[in-house]
Amino acid sequence: MTQNIYDDPDFFAGYSQLPRSVGGLDQAAEWPSMRALLPELGGKRVVDLGCGFGWFARWARGQGAASVLGIDVSETMLGRARAMTRDGGITYVRADLETLVLAENCFDLAYSSLALHYAENLDGVVSAVHRALVPGGHLVLSIEHPIYMAPRDPDWRQDAQGRRFWPLDHYLVEGPRCTNWLADCVIKQHRTLGTTLNRLIAGGLSITHVEEWGPTDAQLAAHPDWAESRDRPMFLLIAARR
Amino acid sequence: MTQNIYDDPDFFAGYSQLPRSVGGLDQAAEWPSMRALLPELGGKRVVDLGCGFGWFARWARGQGAASVLGIDVSETMLGRARAMTRDGGITYVRADLETLVLAENCFDLAYSSLALHYAENLDGVVSAVHRALVPGGHLVLSIEHPIYMAPRDPDWRQDAQGRRFWPLDHYLVEGPRCTNWLADCVIKQHRTLGTTLNRLIAGGLSITHVEEWGPTDAQLAAHPDWAESRDRPMFLLIAARR
Repeated sequence: MTQNIYDDPDFFAGYSQLPRSVGGLDQAAEWPSMRALLPELGGKRVVDLGCGFGWFARWARGQGAASVLGIDVSETMLGRARAMTRDGGITYVRADLETLVLAENCFDLAYSSLALHYAENLDGVVSAVHRALVPGGHLVLSIEHPIYMAPRDPDWRQDAQGRRFWPLDHYLVEGPRCTNWLADCVIKQHRTLGTTLNRLIAGGLSITHVEEWGPTDAQLAAHPDWAESRDRPMFLLIAARR
Repeated sequence: MTQNIYDDPDFFAGYSQLPRSVGGLDQAAEWPSMRALLPELGGKRVVDLGCGFGWFARWARGQGAASVLGIDVSETMLGRARAMTRDGGITYVRADLETLVLAENCFDLAYSSLALHYAENLDGVVSAVHRALVPGGHLVLSIEHPIYMAPRDPDWRQDAQGRRFWPLDHYLVEGPRCTNWLADCVIKQHRTLGTTLNRLIAGGLSITHVEEWGPTDAQLAAHPDWAESRDRPMFLLIAARR
């Protein structure tokens, strides 16, 4: 089973205070890019893998989605999601993404934001998604970028001229990465970009878009600190179809 | 037009002495991985974009390919290729890949090894390839990996413990990179991995495999210096189909 760090009280307390936790999708730098990858949602059946507080589920219903199934491994997250949701079209279910079983041919869109880098068994997730999607159905996902995850010592450095750079190593050494983010040793699974794409392809999906996220000029003007993403992307967005 | 550095006498003299120039495909670290991406070649019509000395063209004919059209911008390279080839099934033509026009529906495989990172107009190449391939036809290509190309100062660093790392920056800043490799200011075109894939997809091709090349354990035992590729991949291999 995936490490369930979100039910760790200290981690959860920290996570709950992130801008995207408090303010929702519009506080997530990569959200405009994710949204641009989505199909029209009117009448669509949606499953959200790693739904967290349910911000996407509620937004999708606002866009006319027929139903949203929100799945998360964290009971604490789901409790908060349920408390924030008054909508019979949204169902929240606790499940481990790696052993997930979904009804066959029942979803038009599988969505997943910054969750699948926790999954050790990506093949299992892809298999479940492929089975759950209707033919032609969409998968839109984000994970932490492997360039961001790979290094043994993932902190910015400066050269003699004061220029920032990212100390990349172990990029091709796949496997768990233990980082101290809101808690000690949060475990993420590092895979190369190629491996993630090949797993999706092997699982029967066609890649339609790959985006190594960076800020637009307008975003950069509003958030100068996002410039570091141009040196080293933090988010990887992928769209695919069954 | 692409910078034609291969017709620079000093560059050519250096390039001619590389192991892969002297010894051919088996001297190229990534060749076993490229070969694994190729379809059966018996009876196939092949175009090689950036054919260099013609090592691949001759190998493909040895595998039973019906014909190989080798294209390169460098007259010096083609002269050497012609001198090394005695085979009416191989044709060498000088052309700039970026403005290439190929006959429609006439090729089963388009192959390109370490050439397309020189092309500024990748869309033009993709368009020519898509038009030239039969439906279901294959594209197998390698380029320098964008992680390798991106940095302003692409040289290994060491941390206080003597561990090697790669000083990544400007990964999302696409455009020309001027590096001193065998000659002063060899110009390559840096694109993110996502951009290269999206151009292929937009050009009507389906991605079938993405490989960020690193050595196998057996290769590493024979070539310990190849270990650096595990920290920072140098080659990117992509397979796609029309």
